[in-house]
Amino acid sequence: MTKAIGARRWAIAGGHIPVESHGPEPAFTSRDQLSILNTGADGASLAITVFHPDRDPVGPYEITVPARRVRRIRVNDLIFPEAVELGRPYALVIESDRPLVIQFTRFDSSGSGARLGSIAADL
Amino acid sequence: MTKAIGARRWAIAGGHIPVESHGPEPAFTSRDQLSILNTGADGASLAITVFHPDRDPVGPYEITVPARRVRRIRVNDLIFPEAVELGRPYALVIESDRPLVIQFTRFDSSGSGARLGSIAADL
Amino acid sequence: MTKAIGARRWAIAGGHIPVESHGPEPAFTSRDQLSILNTGADGASLAITVFHPDRDPVGPYEITVPARRVRRIRVNDLIFPEAVELGRPYALVIESDRPLVIQFTRFDSSGSGARLGSIAADL
Amino acid sequence: MTKAIGARRWAIAGGHIPVESHGPEPAFTSRDQLSILNTGADGASLAITVFHPDRDPVGPYEITVPARRVRRIRVNDLIFPEAVELGRPYALVIESDRPLVIQFTRFDSSGSGARLGSIAADL
Repeated sequence: MTKAIGARRWAIAGGHIPVESHGPEPAFTSRDQLSILNTGADGASLAITVFHPDRDPVGPYEITVPARRVRRIRVNDLIFPEAVELGRPYALVIESDRPLVIQFTRFDSSGSGARLGSIAADL
Repeated sequence: MTKAIGARRWAIAGGHIPVESHGPEPAFTSRDQLSILNTGADGASLAITVFHPDRDPVGPYEITVPARRVRRIRVNDLIFPEAVELGRPYALVIESDRPLVIQFTRFDSSGSGARLGSIAADL
Repeated sequence: MTKAIGARRWAIAGGHIPVESHGPEPAFTSRDQLSILNTGADGASLAITVFHPDRDPVGPYEITVPARRVRRIRVNDLIFPEAVELGRPYALVIESDRPLVIQFTRFDSSGSGARLGSIAADL
Repeated sequence: MTKAIGARRWAIAGGHIPVESHGPEPAFTSRDQLSILNTGADGASLAITVFHPDRDPVGPYEITVPARRVRRIRVNDLIFPEAVELGRPYALVIESDRPLVIQFTRFDSSGSGARLGSIAADL
């Protein structure tokens, strides 16, 4: 299995990182996560653009995923060019030079520990 | 990133706003939410139609999303031409003059604080 | 909005109705639910086939959804030709004479009240 | 209903099996699950490849699903050629000789019993 599968562009409209977390850090820190799968024989270079409700989009956030690897990224860890704001809606567009499969999951410990999951729409 | 991506029509079949909420308002109010991403260089005008189990659909609810912005809308806040009923199934069809990416998420505090997420089907 | 949108065939692979429920009945009864949206000008007739791990599929379960309506059906209420077994995996294939949008949601009160949601894949 | 529906290849990017579980075993063991539906008249042979963050993919894990059956598999039970590691990200690519419908669900009892659901992307 070394064929590159998936798509070169993904979008996530419903981003939101709660301000509050409950439980031991860092396992229970509230977070949005991207799981990025590169099944191909070549490393992939990604550019992430972050969209906001009331100002221009910010980016690119640059990420790489090696050949035949999965990489998990916390949105909280996207800090350059600037950190993603807590407690506000945001959206992501992810563009890659190689086909990828991307899944977006949420771990929200601001309430009673519930989690929410959704997948990115391949556009 | 100013290319308009996504689709002009989206549907959500499984809407439901619980009658009861637990926890501090408004953060813990039970709600269904739409996250609407407009990546394009032009503002988008949306018309939302609400479908019911036992009477004709209601609409249009009119919404705009500026160019290169994400907008989050609580279904509870759709009040013109009429509020969406609590405690009953409903469905949404969203039509736009520009391509959009839409994600539907649920925050349900009627029980023990669980959350439920799903994405809209691009038709 | 009277155009029929969606697909004529949907599948849900991950059905499971817990044996135990906690909380007041019927609001907190564990259940799998189908939300079926018919946006078109004609009523839709559906035939549901239930697949099992260890015996032949059962069906058809026959359902109708009126024109321009949404209908929510608990899988627990599919009792003819036979009730869907509790506590065991099952899958559904739903075939319709009209395009529909279908969303599958789970309410599981067997544990601490969490809920799980997923959407049916349009095939 | 004996027509084979679905796709021959599926991918799940966001795998993660928590190290800790709370509640009676095995019903409350934290787990990722695959629900695999084979609607066709012939049995299906599957080869699963597991991707990791920091080493080469492992596989194939070989699975069969009989004709006209649904089969649920816990990722925890994929032990040959080796068990999937707990507490680390992983991804799956599933290839089949027949069309299938596959849904990925998560039961996470490491926190307060929440569950998370997502569907596999048909590629």
